[in-house]
Amino acid sequence: VSYVTSDEFTTVVDHLWLLICAFLVFLMQAGFAMLEVGTVRQKNAKNLMIKNIMDLAAGAFVWWAFGFAFAYGGGDYSGGPSNGFIGAQGFFFIKGYDACDDASEFCLYPIKPKYDSFAGWLFQWAFAATATTIVSGAVAERCSFLGYVIYAVFITGFIYPVVVHWIWSEYGWLSAFRNPDAPGVWIASGVVDFAGSGVVHLVGGTISLVAAYILGPRIGRFDATGKVVPIMPHNSAFVGLGTLLLWFGWFGFNSGSTLALSGGFILAAEKVAVGTTLAASGGGLAGICMCFVKDGYLDLPALCNGILGGLVGVCSAVAVAEPWACWVIGFFAGCVEFWFAIGVQKLKIDDPLDASAVHMGCGFFGLICGGLFGTRLNTDATYSADQPCGAFFPGCGGQQLGVNILGGVMIMVWCSGMAFLVFGGMRLAGILRISSKQEHEGLDVSYHGSAAYDDTMDGSGSAKYRNK
Amino acid sequence: VSYVTSDEFTTVVDHLWLLICAFLVFLMQAGFAMLEVGTVRQKNAKNLMIKNIMDLAAGAFVWWAFGFAFAYGGGDYSGGPSNGFIGAQGFFFIKGYDACDDASEFCLYPIKPKYDSFAGWLFQWAFAATATTIVSGAVAERCSFLGYVIYAVFITGFIYPVVVHWIWSEYGWLSAFRNPDAPGVWIASGVVDFAGSGVVHLVGGTISLVAAYILGPRIGRFDATGKVVPIMPHNSAFVGLGTLLLWFGWFGFNSGSTLALSGGFILAAEKVAVGTTLAASGGGLAGICMCFVKDGYLDLPALCNGILGGLVGVCSAVAVAEPWACWVIGFFAGCVEFWFAIGVQKLKIDDPLDASAVHMGCGFFGLICGGLFGTRLNTDATYSADQPCGAFFPGCGGQQLGVNILGGVMIMVWCSGMAFLVFGGMRLAGILRISSKQEHEGLDVSYHGSAAYDDTMDGSGSAKYRNK
Amino acid sequence: VSYVTSDEFTTVVDHLWLLICAFLVFLMQAGFAMLEVGTVRQKNAKNLMIKNIMDLAAGAFVWWAFGFAFAYGGGDYSGGPSNGFIGAQGFFFIKGYDACDDASEFCLYPIKPKYDSFAGWLFQWAFAATATTIVSGAVAERCSFLGYVIYAVFITGFIYPVVVHWIWSEYGWLSAFRNPDAPGVWIASGVVDFAGSGVVHLVGGTISLVAAYILGPRIGRFDATGKVVPIMPHNSAFVGLGTLLLWFGWFGFNSGSTLALSGGFILAAEKVAVGTTLAASGGGLAGICMCFVKDGYLDLPALCNGILGGLVGVCSAVAVAEPWACWVIGFFAGCVEFWFAIGVQKLKIDDPLDASAVHMGCGFFGLICGGLFGTRLNTDATYSADQPCGAFFPGCGGQQLGVNILGGVMIMVWCSGMAFLVFGGMRLAGILRISSKQEHEGLDVSYHGSAAYDDTMDGSGSAKYRNK
Repeated sequence: VSYVTSDEFTTVVDHLWLLICAFLVFLMQAGFAMLEVGTVRQKNAKNLMIKNIMDLAAGAFVWWAFGFAFAYGGGDYSGGPSNGFIGAQGFFFIKGYDACDDASEFCLYPIKPKYDSFAGWLFQWAFAATATTIVSGAVAERCSFLGYVIYAVFITGFIYPVVVHWIWSEYGWLSAFRNPDAPGVWIASGVVDFAGSGVVHLVGGTISLVAAYILGPRIGRFDATGKVVPIMPHNSAFVGLGTLLLWFGWFGFNSGSTLALSGGFILAAEKVAVGTTLAASGGGLAGICMCFVKDGYLDLPALCNGILGGLVGVCSAVAVAEPWACWVIGFFAGCVEFWFAIGVQKLKIDDPLDASAVHMGCGFFGLICGGLFGTRLNTDATYSADQPCGAFFPGCGGQQLGVNILGGVMIMVWCSGMAFLVFGGMRLAGILRISSKQEHEGLDVSYHGSAAYDDTMDGSGSAKYRNK
Repeated sequence: VSYVTSDEFTTVVDHLWLLICAFLVFLMQAGFAMLEVGTVRQKNAKNLMIKNIMDLAAGAFVWWAFGFAFAYGGGDYSGGPSNGFIGAQGFFFIKGYDACDDASEFCLYPIKPKYDSFAGWLFQWAFAATATTIVSGAVAERCSFLGYVIYAVFITGFIYPVVVHWIWSEYGWLSAFRNPDAPGVWIASGVVDFAGSGVVHLVGGTISLVAAYILGPRIGRFDATGKVVPIMPHNSAFVGLGTLLLWFGWFGFNSGSTLALSGGFILAAEKVAVGTTLAASGGGLAGICMCFVKDGYLDLPALCNGILGGLVGVCSAVAVAEPWACWVIGFFAGCVEFWFAIGVQKLKIDDPLDASAVHMGCGFFGLICGGLFGTRLNTDATYSADQPCGAFFPGCGGQQLGVNILGGVMIMVWCSGMAFLVFGGMRLAGILRISSKQEHEGLDVSYHGSAAYDDTMDGSGSAKYRNK
Repeated sequence: VSYVTSDEFTTVVDHLWLLICAFLVFLMQAGFAMLEVGTVRQKNAKNLMIKNIMDLAAGAFVWWAFGFAFAYGGGDYSGGPSNGFIGAQGFFFIKGYDACDDASEFCLYPIKPKYDSFAGWLFQWAFAATATTIVSGAVAERCSFLGYVIYAVFITGFIYPVVVHWIWSEYGWLSAFRNPDAPGVWIASGVVDFAGSGVVHLVGGTISLVAAYILGPRIGRFDATGKVVPIMPHNSAFVGLGTLLLWFGWFGFNSGSTLALSGGFILAAEKVAVGTTLAASGGGLAGICMCFVKDGYLDLPALCNGILGGLVGVCSAVAVAEPWACWVIGFFAGCVEFWFAIGVQKLKIDDPLDASAVHMGCGFFGLICGGLFGTRLNTDATYSADQPCGAFFPGCGGQQLGVNILGGVMIMVWCSGMAFLVFGGMRLAGILRISSKQEHEGLDVSYHGSAAYDDTMDGSGSAKYRNK
């Protein structure tokens, strides 16, 4: 009888877990696609679908070419210098992995630290696609395709990876996983942002807000007196399906952020799945209750955005907080989402998907919760005994809260600055926004050859879906 | 070289299995949503989507607060009394788990019997959402939102957990997994209901029938002479997509009911997946053939409901029956579904999704099959040597068949009684059904602020989707 | 402390992997369904959905009855003869598995070679459904239902299993996994077709082309001068969702083709997942760029078919090629798809889904790449040291390229021959194609009782979706 070595076991179950969760996070893209397609007007449905698929197709190339290298490059395998701001090795997988020493064993490449596995790359790619996709909702129905391509490359390839490097790499100046031997500045014990309230959502949400502001509102979004004119989602079934697919994928997003199952991390992963569920529950109930109190009816977008707000809000704290705290975080995140969206409207900024409310509002709120609700026991188990616990609990002190807020502010500074450069530059160059004629007839007919739908019997393309 | 202990291996693979299957069962909710949304008229599409999402969001709170405690509470960790009817410990996870004894090890909570893990909670929550969602189909297009909220809380939080406690907990008076030291009555060797033909589907289906009866038919469902007037599904693509998502999720529902992969249960899990497939095959073929014979055409709902009927019917026996028996069970369950639905119509009961036919008819039929088709070998492997095998096989005797029928009858008695109380009470209070004006214009406009669809170019909400 | 044996570990993780990947490949059927439903005209939407679901429901019966036996039958457990052309044992699982020797252990059946497990059967069934479903796109909108049933049974039950036996069984005359003791002819070291560019896609694609040719074009597809008349997809959101679901399921299709995780295969599986991603990226970018260059706009079907072409093209080489090669393969496969589709149109063959371009064009191209891009190291790790590496690399020689091309040609000969017999026979018998009246009014009304959609308030079925 032969026995299984810890090495083989660890490799198999940890990489399997990353693979499965990468697949789930991938499916979030289908969720975003259906949510965004359903929320916009039918004349722009195909455009949104194309953007969401391009975020994966073009995004994979960009992430392979340089995004991943900027995020996690500079590792121990390279011998090169590393710094706390940005990585610089592993472009196109070059020096990202090596051949085996001994061809007599099974080897595609030697087993590497977790971030260096292909499964890890895939998982991180799906995260990058998420960060980029968030923005497509905020600029929906009026951004040019060239503008989309340029900003998507910048986010996937540069803006987002830099933040990842700061907070999740072992070299980052704000990283809780920092290698103590890495050179350069290190801020206290780093940011507790387990699954990315800050790294993913606050990045996407902040860029969303700036982009929507620079791009200006859709024609007809505000009336002559500045009052918001409702623009109805064109397909509520898509909105609901998208939300359910997002929630489904979020199990991979949050639970998969343990990056491992061995060494007891299965217990963390399943606890995270429960916290994720309770946060979505709290957020959804907050959203639909707010809607009922304010508007007198129970609308689907309020329910869905509340759920998404809860899911965003809990990402940071989900591993270190208890289940009850996850529900509370979700509930208040649902409230933050609701009022943030109204605030954005008051500022005359048109964010068709409320992407800034869901991802910026709840993302920053989530970072605060990550500094508030970590228990000592959970923090020990999922971070380390040196990581401070949350300010809510006696004896933990306020350090983690302070570092998390600093992290959130730095993310907003970096992302809004870069977004002003990228979107402002494109606006100055006159390539950011489509013409009013194109906006009137819709992007599908303008850019994509035909309307998204056709209800003729002969497939000739009915006039009712066009607006010439 | 270090080796993996059986403890770590078991914890990782068994909990991982529960997590994955919980995710799959979660996605069944998207399947139900699309199936129900597609089957109703477009004026109620948003309402159905909201209900299905609320079943998860509100359901998670209720299951956390008391549903799980009623179902599985009273365990060995509490020291409190337990009984065969209902559990009573673990509300809001209080006393549901403990801190580690030794903070120097990785610990979020000590490893517990399988039902006490967070993964187990999540898996059971997804099941509870299924039981509740079934009813939303039966009361579709005419039930008030308040009525929906009240019945959903009762089902998720009380009616369903009690049946779970009876049949799946280690204290239940009808449980095949009963701890021999538990006090109180125990009926023979308990019900063989592996994945819940009875516990989930017969519960949801029985309540569906009573609810549809008490609620009364939709306006226009029967003509002056009492003949059924067809009400067409508004989107067949959603119906088909929903069915495929349900089948997909059902792999987790059935295979995941092994609750483990270690100790040889992987073999049971994969055999269950095959049996599930063959039952869906049998049911689908039965459904579409029946439709062709009776109506002369091949309709999608008949195919889909046949598949779902087969999947429901096989849940009970799937672990103990051979693959050929699963196909046979599925085929006849498809027939049961078809004729049960016609019988319900003859009784002038309007069940828009045929939820009672699929889940009550095939659920009870499934329990019978659970008492008929268990082989000795399979029953040994997935239950125990003390559990009787199925009456179909010589030497097994009729005990299991008798107990399974008793279990089915008790479920129907309990659920119909509770449903008469809950729905009858709401009807008497005048809060169960919407007004005929609301029913005429549809729930989306009445309750949810706007129609589900909009095909205008400016998003102003077209009149064609309204019915004032 | 007890330790885990290698046997238990291997059984659990390898079978678990097959199960998970089987579920993912199953979901590809939902992807095909949405892609096909969305691409055709609304009058045939329900028909396509029914066909795709029937491919699973009827396909499971056929695969259980004889498909699997033809593909993998003749194994060591049977004692019977085996040959390189077709298997002949294990119909209805008879002799497919046995009872345990020792009832005191956990046993449903003894652990068997990987192809003989139930998980393996399920995985292969999902593959068979894929091969068959491909054809439903090519014959869409004009094939009779009887014709569909007959060809589907032939493909799932005979044409496809024979090719599987040739190339993937341990007896096949073109198999890289051939048991050296098997009697009969063996061509060199067999075809390198890791996940089925040839076995699945070239089979489905070749039959598609022949079927579309024999069936003739849809009415109105070519104008009087022979020019193509565009027939618009009726729902672009479905097209995009279907593509995303296909990509998602393809992770299981390709990565799952390792058939194992133990013994280091986890490293292969994750590398395959990355190669799959990069191929989809290359294909999608090629597709949308081609479309822009040729037509001046950026259309969704071009993007989606490019992605699918990349995914098809990489199947063969994905385990033996490096990531950079996967992107290159995907990119050129996207080009092949684009021009193949135009070529088919020039030949006046009407393939509504471009199934022949995606699956035949890219399938054959993929086989070539499987003979070109295998590195020595990767081939050692995933095949064996005796398997030749790819002709692109110095020192590998041209043998693998030659065998792969031979394999591709033999598949096309076999499939086109069988397709001419089956479709030609049905055409001669006058049962293949619907009447022009039925085609005019659509299959949904002709065959399936009613239109796929209804937008009335009372569910009475609106006239606008009919075409009498």
